[in-house]
Amino acid sequence: MSKPTIGFVGLGAMGFGMATNLVREGYPVVGYDVFPASVQRFQTAGGIPASSLRESAEGKDFYVCMVASAPQVQSVLFGDDGIVQYLPPNATLFLCSTVPASYAQSVAAELQSLGRADIRFIDCPVSGGAKRAADGTLSIMAGAPEEALNSGREILQVMSDQKKLYLVPGGIGAGSNMKMVHQVLAGIHILGASEAMGFAAQLGLDAKTTAAKIIGTEAWTWMHENRLPRMLAEDWNPGASALTIILKDVGIITTSARQHHFPVPLCSTAEQVYLSALLQGYGAKDDSAMVRQYFPTPIAPVAASADDVAASLQLVLDLMLGVNLVAAAEAIAFARYLKVDLAQFHELVRDAAGASKVFIHKGLEMIEGRIGDKAPAGSQLLDEAVSQLEKVVQKARDLHCPLHLGNAALTVLLLARRNGFGGEASTSVIQVFGPE
Amino acid sequence: MSKPTIGFVGLGAMGFGMATNLVREGYPVVGYDVFPASVQRFQTAGGIPASSLRESAEGKDFYVCMVASAPQVQSVLFGDDGIVQYLPPNATLFLCSTVPASYAQSVAAELQSLGRADIRFIDCPVSGGAKRAADGTLSIMAGAPEEALNSGREILQVMSDQKKLYLVPGGIGAGSNMKMVHQVLAGIHILGASEAMGFAAQLGLDAKTTAAKIIGTEAWTWMHENRLPRMLAEDWNPGASALTIILKDVGIITTSARQHHFPVPLCSTAEQVYLSALLQGYGAKDDSAMVRQYFPTPIAPVAASADDVAASLQLVLDLMLGVNLVAAAEAIAFARYLKVDLAQFHELVRDAAGASKVFIHKGLEMIEGRIGDKAPAGSQLLDEAVSQLEKVVQKARDLHCPLHLGNAALTVLLLARRNGFGGEASTSVIQVFGPE
Repeated sequence: MSKPTIGFVGLGAMGFGMATNLVREGYPVVGYDVFPASVQRFQTAGGIPASSLRESAEGKDFYVCMVASAPQVQSVLFGDDGIVQYLPPNATLFLCSTVPASYAQSVAAELQSLGRADIRFIDCPVSGGAKRAADGTLSIMAGAPEEALNSGREILQVMSDQKKLYLVPGGIGAGSNMKMVHQVLAGIHILGASEAMGFAAQLGLDAKTTAAKIIGTEAWTWMHENRLPRMLAEDWNPGASALTIILKDVGIITTSARQHHFPVPLCSTAEQVYLSALLQGYGAKDDSAMVRQYFPTPIAPVAASADDVAASLQLVLDLMLGVNLVAAAEAIAFARYLKVDLAQFHELVRDAAGASKVFIHKGLEMIEGRIGDKAPAGSQLLDEAVSQLEKVVQKARDLHCPLHLGNAALTVLLLARRNGFGGEASTSVIQVFGPE
Repeated sequence: MSKPTIGFVGLGAMGFGMATNLVREGYPVVGYDVFPASVQRFQTAGGIPASSLRESAEGKDFYVCMVASAPQVQSVLFGDDGIVQYLPPNATLFLCSTVPASYAQSVAAELQSLGRADIRFIDCPVSGGAKRAADGTLSIMAGAPEEALNSGREILQVMSDQKKLYLVPGGIGAGSNMKMVHQVLAGIHILGASEAMGFAAQLGLDAKTTAAKIIGTEAWTWMHENRLPRMLAEDWNPGASALTIILKDVGIITTSARQHHFPVPLCSTAEQVYLSALLQGYGAKDDSAMVRQYFPTPIAPVAASADDVAASLQLVLDLMLGVNLVAAAEAIAFARYLKVDLAQFHELVRDAAGASKVFIHKGLEMIEGRIGDKAPAGSQLLDEAVSQLEKVVQKARDLHCPLHLGNAALTVLLLARRNGFGGEASTSVIQVFGPE
């Protein structure tokens, strides 16, 4: 059976990879982008160019929308030349952009009110970066009525890793919520990677040695490993992921958190640092350029000069361990508040861009809620976590090195401590975010 | 009776004012500074120049130390040419520098171990800025044994406003602790002044109209009123109070807070922003230059362009009200934890550089602990405070304006809310800092 033609809009870093992967898998893909150069590049890669939204949509039973933001989605779907008017009856529409859950729900409502409830609309944001997009191994979080999911499952499976297509219960909005709580981790870890490497440079540590240590230990985050090459090469102009992209995602989180009156201390802190960098003109640069907020010159040439390399390295690891611990608590507490399926959330994150070893291990303790139980082997008490992070923060202060996330994480741990949530660190810190 | 000769070291912005005030009051003052130009300026103003620490100290029954930091104090007192070896028996030594309480206590111990327990040592940091220093109307927080206080009282009174000499119970270290908890407010309000004015510029508000509104309402802070002229004139090079000065004071707070495992969320946030500015080369500039962290060009020429001036002004006021509320809670909670006399603290702050209308009014509610009582007239519920600040933070986000303190304050309010500390805002927010 021949494969159906797919309409596609949004041929940026992620969208180009996704669209060309579909082409390689044998689908005719008609692609459109507001930048003609992107369309031409897609044609060169085997895609079918469209010269308008209309051309990309007419007669397409399947349509993928991968533009950058909710306002762009709104224009693509419902604008003057919007695709909804051109899609055939019962078309399946994949919304892969990262948008607020409330926006995804508004799309469903608008389709209904336009008399296009026949369109099988799937709220299915993705995660994994440009390379996994091109490889067809993304993580995809899909929420929709069962009929739509059945119709779209094959194409979703082609775009995602065999084990990373998550059908999220809860219908339209559930996928976006899952993506959002995943991005809590991504938004913190991106800055965390820069904070750790900038701090290491201030300590007089060699960047590659430090990075190898981080990557090989419990301090590991997916984001650190992913951003490191671009950070070292200063491959920022434009680089693979502009600051404005994560800033948009973080804005969705903090805006939604405010709507729920829910505190997201590290994510808010990261957002403020991103906004500061935006003010300094970093918007279009790769987000790994955030390392400049911590160290004024390139970190790769920093000559190793730390007196006690092992002790200094340990401070960098402890910074990441402390930040990643509070990040895990913040993401899980917010997910729990939003009634996200926590087991699925944990399973998803461990293989996605928001992953950290701390989330995988201590996050599981938080989810399983071993509060008051005997601490498992290898666990850490809250007081120990406080003490480790205090040493880190003090050293950074002595070096006049900003440590935005480290300080914010320490504040959360200290507030947990002051509020009497003692015992095991993982199950203590999540309590400061309040009851379920 | 002729007035005694006073030795004086540290003729910077504050010290010069204090020393020349003593000269005007009829005291012969022998002044020293590491910068010869400062000594010469002092001579021109009627002081007696000293060409060495030794010359400033030999035969002086009274000695004022007003250098910038604990390491400088250590060198001045106990270094190779340190004054302690030259002071006559039973000399009275005023340590007016802002130092950690633990450092002031170490000075007393070192005098003891050097066999100079005869020196009447007074831990007496000051507050009020260069103008009040020159006018002899500083706030002074003096802690010492009674004999030393009796010996030094006359000179302390000459340097301070009649009603602003605070004899702080608790001996050596108590004055420095009182100064430190005062500086919690100063350290936050200095950044708060810039944050409010930068946000106003982003909103398209005229700076002078905005400032007049802030100064005339409950949003007033001493720091905002004091920094405003320099902020508008960009009188920053060097300006009256270098960023490095408040950064040093804030470092004393955060370091001491960490030693006590006590959270100081807004002060820590301010410190990180100060450190970021230091990294950008702002160290020697006046701290009112922090407005550049929020708006990229001078704010004075910003033409009024806000659609709804009244609503936009209200957002600026609400920002200050929210930040000042959490600042008051943070300072009072930390003071309470350190067993500082809260009634004296409140009395001192209301007439000093850390003052805000919110501290004066709602701080009193916090100190008097009307928890669970019927809220007094004009009080505000926690939910209302949250709601107001959420609107502010959302608007700043929409404008891509960083709002470091506003976000950190909202996080504290939300954590208070999530932990079930509802009811009146003032008495709710302080509870999140833990029990007494």
